[in-house]
Amino acid sequence: MISSEYTKNLCARDSDAKILFLVVDGLGGLPHPDTGKSELETAKLPNLDALAKGGTCGLISPLGAGFTPGSGPAHLALFGYDPWKSEIGRGALSALGLGLDFARGDVAARLNFCTVDSEGRVQDRRAGRISTEKGRELCEMLQRVEVPGVEVTVAAEMEYRAGVVFRGEGLGDQVSDSDPQVTGVPPKPLVAAPGSERTVEVANAFLAQVAELLAAESPANMVLMRGFGCYPELAQMDEVYGLKALGIAGYPMYRGVAGAVGMDVVEVGWDLESECTVLEEHYGDYDFFYMHVKKTDSAGEDGNFDLKVKLLEEVDSYIPRLLALKPDVLVVTGDHSTPSIMASHSWHPVPTAIAGQWALADQASQFSERGCAAGSLGVIPSSSLLALSLAHARRLDKFGA
Amino acid sequence: MISSEYTKNLCARDSDAKILFLVVDGLGGLPHPDTGKSELETAKLPNLDALAKGGTCGLISPLGAGFTPGSGPAHLALFGYDPWKSEIGRGALSALGLGLDFARGDVAARLNFCTVDSEGRVQDRRAGRISTEKGRELCEMLQRVEVPGVEVTVAAEMEYRAGVVFRGEGLGDQVSDSDPQVTGVPPKPLVAAPGSERTVEVANAFLAQVAELLAAESPANMVLMRGFGCYPELAQMDEVYGLKALGIAGYPMYRGVAGAVGMDVVEVGWDLESECTVLEEHYGDYDFFYMHVKKTDSAGEDGNFDLKVKLLEEVDSYIPRLLALKPDVLVVTGDHSTPSIMASHSWHPVPTAIAGQWALADQASQFSERGCAAGSLGVIPSSSLLALSLAHARRLDKFGA
Repeated sequence: MISSEYTKNLCARDSDAKILFLVVDGLGGLPHPDTGKSELETAKLPNLDALAKGGTCGLISPLGAGFTPGSGPAHLALFGYDPWKSEIGRGALSALGLGLDFARGDVAARLNFCTVDSEGRVQDRRAGRISTEKGRELCEMLQRVEVPGVEVTVAAEMEYRAGVVFRGEGLGDQVSDSDPQVTGVPPKPLVAAPGSERTVEVANAFLAQVAELLAAESPANMVLMRGFGCYPELAQMDEVYGLKALGIAGYPMYRGVAGAVGMDVVEVGWDLESECTVLEEHYGDYDFFYMHVKKTDSAGEDGNFDLKVKLLEEVDSYIPRLLALKPDVLVVTGDHSTPSIMASHSWHPVPTAIAGQWALADQASQFSERGCAAGSLGVIPSSSLLALSLAHARRLDKFGA
Repeated sequence: MISSEYTKNLCARDSDAKILFLVVDGLGGLPHPDTGKSELETAKLPNLDALAKGGTCGLISPLGAGFTPGSGPAHLALFGYDPWKSEIGRGALSALGLGLDFARGDVAARLNFCTVDSEGRVQDRRAGRISTEKGRELCEMLQRVEVPGVEVTVAAEMEYRAGVVFRGEGLGDQVSDSDPQVTGVPPKPLVAAPGSERTVEVANAFLAQVAELLAAESPANMVLMRGFGCYPELAQMDEVYGLKALGIAGYPMYRGVAGAVGMDVVEVGWDLESECTVLEEHYGDYDFFYMHVKKTDSAGEDGNFDLKVKLLEEVDSYIPRLLALKPDVLVVTGDHSTPSIMASHSWHPVPTAIAGQWALADQASQFSERGCAAGSLGVIPSSSLLALSLAHARRLDKFGA
């Protein structure tokens, strides 16, 4: 569901104007106790500060005051959806991100390779964090699983993580996880809510064959299943906004959410250099670009203040290259805050700058939490940002006579 | 109804973190025409200003831009409820605040002792503002009323005010007031909407006996009834937020609303000294404390700018004592604004400071209307403040993967 019920009434205008969203994951932070300065305030960000000075700034709140979002709802909000009403299961997101053939009616789930003992008790929920390469090899083995009447597709994610998609009749996604979350006990039996019984039958048949196929493997001799999810049914960006959109993200899950809202997605490395190159290559073919920087969030999650500072400076160094493309609107923002001193996502609203011909240069002169608080946008819902960007690109008609 | 329908999905975390809400009634004001400074800007508030400097500030709006709340909705919003959807009748609030045995199915109403002449016409709607002591004496007399099939409980409030609770079968609360609002006319007959006819029968039987019991009294020889209300059915704070909460308020109505949302309440004097002592005594037993300061609102309502300034300075002097308890989150706010120059509640959003380890110290450096407008919260609904406080206490899990 698109956040603003009005959006669909606002005829998206035919336009060539291009919008570039640079989404720096976990962007917002909090002051380091020794210096009183946040990651953004510590980093040297001449280009981002110039953007803040020349543009319109503010803070965006993914879920409203006080609520800390996961990556899924935070991104859906950035793309204009009501994040409370448009949840996507993590399994569904992963499947989308892996580029699996995943469509309406299918059910996806996440797989974790794990180690079980001779009694079937889970000894290691991550199978010693096997390599991504090993994970791929094992996933190829699992492609041999055959469940009558059902198409089974398995694909590797990073390390011990993988995803599976079941295609067949009568599959629901209201199924509990088999991951027991602790070791020393067997995987939990899958339990279906009414309407999802068939999925449990299929998944159990799948698991039985997996156990046989992996019996001789070590340490990854079994899988745990979690996050069952149907293909998400979300309004598509081209229909709602009239945007031909490209999602550029190294990490599968973010390609997943981009794909779910109707963006084309392209596989790309995790680094800004690769992402920028892809952007430049495809710049003529799209109206809207979502470019995702993952590492800042990981640094925040790891509590690595200095690394986050360094990564922000790296982001800053790419701003001239983005501006060289002359997008009509450049938005620099984040999906949520990840203060290094909390080592987790947080509820704090996210610094945001909008640059473009029709953006009022306001009092904000530093691209930071406190700098953007002085901007003219105030604190707005993240789900308002896309419409605001369309406006700045003059891609929205007026409402009413 | 809790304001955010999502709150219930956000597992409130098990936590020992303590949250203290200091609610300064009618906190916000407007500049004095002679000085251009509001009550808060005039008062010397070193402790509150320090709190503002070190914490996260903003303005909270009880009902949204432009709407002036009564005490009931303003407080429900502070406790996280949608104030538009969770109205409590004033009679119900009073009954709760008086500590009357008031439960589901009961109907309460407010009583005002009044003076009627020999023809039954109201001469004084407040019976010459009889003393609280006299009111108590009269209420004891009224306990002799007996209505078949109905349990009647009467309790005194301040001065000429009292409350009554009827317990019996088939009682609704859709009953008009008998208070004619003017003198020289008899009390209005009570009128029931369909479903509340039995309440009018009961109330009329009650009023007939009251007239006899008080016939020899002067000036309080009758009562007026108003604000009929059933026991409010509101989600309870422990269920929704996982908070064991204590309400500390001298004035009955505020204990009433605290009790209605599931707080324990404790009878206490009107002064901050008594309230602080109660807080300190019970500090180990609860997670959440609502401490209410009434006199600031009364001063504002009376148009007494200087008294409000003095009372704010008194509030300020207690801040160190609150901080000495080391609450994880201290919130200083108000239920609504009561500018002395308006001598009434107003719609102006209310200065708010959140202090705690995870509160970003923002640009706000003065605890005032304009000072807090420079904070990083912006203007948020009052009903968001509780979730925001839970977040700062790290008592909320994230939403979505």
